[in-house]
Amino acid sequence: VFNRIDHIGIAVEEIEGSLALYRDAFKMQVAHREIVEEQGVEAVLLDVGENHIELVAPLGPDTPVGKFLERRGEGVHHVGYGVANITAALEAIGATGVRLIDERPRHGSMGASIAFLHPADLGGVLTELVQARDPESPI
Amino acid sequence: VFNRIDHIGIAVEEIEGSLALYRDAFKMQVAHREIVEEQGVEAVLLDVGENHIELVAPLGPDTPVGKFLERRGEGVHHVGYGVANITAALEAIGATGVRLIDERPRHGSMGASIAFLHPADLGGVLTELVQARDPESPI
Repeated sequence: VFNRIDHIGIAVEEIEGSLALYRDAFKMQVAHREIVEEQGVEAVLLDVGENHIELVAPLGPDTPVGKFLERRGEGVHHVGYGVANITAALEAIGATGVRLIDERPRHGSMGASIAFLHPADLGGVLTELVQARDPESPI
Repeated sequence: VFNRIDHIGIAVEEIEGSLALYRDAFKMQVAHREIVEEQGVEAVLLDVGENHIELVAPLGPDTPVGKFLERRGEGVHHVGYGVANITAALEAIGATGVRLIDERPRHGSMGASIAFLHPADLGGVLTELVQARDPESPI
């Protein structure tokens, strides 16, 4: 179903300090930076070969990531897997009994289609599917 | 410094149920299974393209993973990055001020060399470096 680990989402209190850390200590390059109002985060995508680290900082304390930080502190927030066909993947995974947070894919950053699976059915791991934008299609 | 996300280590209460979940829901294949007495875990490595998920279950409650589960419950335990030269990577990272749990690489499973970095210096993320076994050299 999955062709790679697309990214690991890491919840951080604020972007600048964490970004400096990953850039200085690990020499990671920024691939993309975006404020995603819908999810209440500022997100920075860093390259690790063909995989990524996504730093996510909350836009406020009442956002999902803001509540996560209050409850757990900084750390891994979610795991994103790459899929070739997100609609088929959601159908196949849903048929095994794992609850889907998103029954249908929605728009992610950089033209991707994304959907989240319920962490309670996956040993506490908030899991995201990511189908990259078709490079042939307009954004 | 890193050429890929080598694996995501997920702490689980026991292997069989979690393994069935990742195999059934996500169709992941088992690449390796091993009891690592030194780390107090049973570990199963699952393929995700050229990346991996590593399920780790504690051999007892007084192991590091046993204590993690008591404190946090099931979920992501560590992130492992692939490096070409682990000795050079440790030196470069240590020079930036990130504390090294392992000053020198030690033996991991499947002939790899591994070393852990301190989560307190990395936003709560326990971070592992993995240099895969040289396929030319004997195990």
